[in-house]
Amino acid sequence: MSSLHFKKAAIIGVGLIGGSLAMVLRNKGMAAEIVGIGRGLPNLEAAKRLGIVDSFTTDIAEGVKDADLVIIAVPVLKMADTIRLSAPNLLPGCIITDVGSVKGSVIEAVEPLIPKGVHFVPGHPIAGTENSGAEAAFPELYIERKCILTPTPRTDAGALQTVKKIWEAAGSTVVVMDAAVHDIILAAVSHLPHMIAYTLVNTVADMEAAGEDVISYSAGGFKDFTRIASSSPEMWSDICAMNKGPLLKTIDEFQKRLEKLKGLIENESYPELKREFERAKGARDSLIKGHKPSKESA
Amino acid sequence: MSSLHFKKAAIIGVGLIGGSLAMVLRNKGMAAEIVGIGRGLPNLEAAKRLGIVDSFTTDIAEGVKDADLVIIAVPVLKMADTIRLSAPNLLPGCIITDVGSVKGSVIEAVEPLIPKGVHFVPGHPIAGTENSGAEAAFPELYIERKCILTPTPRTDAGALQTVKKIWEAAGSTVVVMDAAVHDIILAAVSHLPHMIAYTLVNTVADMEAAGEDVISYSAGGFKDFTRIASSSPEMWSDICAMNKGPLLKTIDEFQKRLEKLKGLIENESYPELKREFERAKGARDSLIKGHKPSKESA
Repeated sequence: MSSLHFKKAAIIGVGLIGGSLAMVLRNKGMAAEIVGIGRGLPNLEAAKRLGIVDSFTTDIAEGVKDADLVIIAVPVLKMADTIRLSAPNLLPGCIITDVGSVKGSVIEAVEPLIPKGVHFVPGHPIAGTENSGAEAAFPELYIERKCILTPTPRTDAGALQTVKKIWEAAGSTVVVMDAAVHDIILAAVSHLPHMIAYTLVNTVADMEAAGEDVISYSAGGFKDFTRIASSSPEMWSDICAMNKGPLLKTIDEFQKRLEKLKGLIENESYPELKREFERAKGARDSLIKGHKPSKESA
Repeated sequence: MSSLHFKKAAIIGVGLIGGSLAMVLRNKGMAAEIVGIGRGLPNLEAAKRLGIVDSFTTDIAEGVKDADLVIIAVPVLKMADTIRLSAPNLLPGCIITDVGSVKGSVIEAVEPLIPKGVHFVPGHPIAGTENSGAEAAFPELYIERKCILTPTPRTDAGALQTVKKIWEAAGSTVVVMDAAVHDIILAAVSHLPHMIAYTLVNTVADMEAAGEDVISYSAGGFKDFTRIASSSPEMWSDICAMNKGPLLKTIDEFQKRLEKLKGLIENESYPELKREFERAKGARDSLIKGHKPSKESA
């Protein structure tokens, strides 16, 4: 196997994420053959029709046979089962990588199941859209995005470099870090905001004021703000399960700060309140401009 | 004065909100003369150039002279001073209305300053954009929006009807309610989300994980979610001051619910967690479709 040409790439889960990466492999000539593996035939048929995969199967063990690259793009709670079904047919030298949005618990569940000589490289591309399924896939999804790889002490250095190059070919900036660091970062920038959005919508939806339907008075700002509350409840309950520790830590941190903000309002400390708002505005505006926000010592 | 034709309308604060309403008065032929009043000459000159006002002045007392309609579109903390400066020149029968996003404390501050025979009708159009100033104004701003009017025991019934008709002419649905109900509704759908967005951005901006700049890993969802954290710190500190009680009440309610959600994660009550997410998704999706969300007894 040359470092960026695979004989057979198996994509387990040909949705937005897996399908888009398959299209990159195809467009860059990185795989001679691409097999799609999944549970739903209509989606697999769509993937074939769209040229995302050459063939497909619903049988994981069959699909991964002779593959030298396996990409696991199934929900995080399903990864261990996926590996369990693949393992008997995985060849030594095969590279397995995943795209799960939680890393620590995925590694814990998956790594012991990886056969000897097979190389597992845990990964997470920070990309996505509102849409799902093979029909939502497009090869530009990863351009100018970050992809985080979280090797373990067992991870083969050559396999790590190969997976890094795949993501770079997709247009992403690859950052290598510890799984625990990944999990706290994602808890903060993604999992915590989802918990807050869900909580805010339920707070407002259940509120009544003299018989008025409070939520019906919400304007554009609230709707934008709570867009992520429309995300899949099942996926998010899984993520809570898989990233429990880091998520609880960031919720605690948020709660402390909200309590402090409430104190400023209670005590009518308006200049300090305004400084808090200015700090947030500065950080947020810098983010949009692509600059790093300036930090204060908190 | 016929009910929807004014001899002279004075707009105090010719920004997005005041300017857009002035354009409605103009387009619907509701005012023979429109005078813009403000502090900044460049903005007033723009308003005149754009045909939003016929003339302008920085002298409030001068500007409101002989007006039979006065629209106060200045920041909520400045309303009392505005009325104080206007009062000597206000004629009996004149209708004054405002557009402030807080009503209880505005009424408390403003109503005692209204001269006898002058009719004050507190109002709040729920509309806005990211932009500000006369150049951002456009007459369609209020179409299909809600406008809340909060009459007091002193409010003249005829004046209330007249202001209602002005907003209906602008394309809005007018809802009449008690100021206290307005303030709790707006605390929930607007003020609370802003406090949460500011707090979330500061939580993430100050977080460090093994030297990584956490906030730089945020993707589209976080950016959309925190867009409102870019709002004016000064305006929001004023709103906190003016709507302190209702805002604290909604923060409390949110905190209780977040604590409950945290408990579900801690106790690994994932089916219940999923139901919470489903409920939020349902309420949010219904909101987008313009339907009322179905409510559970909380």
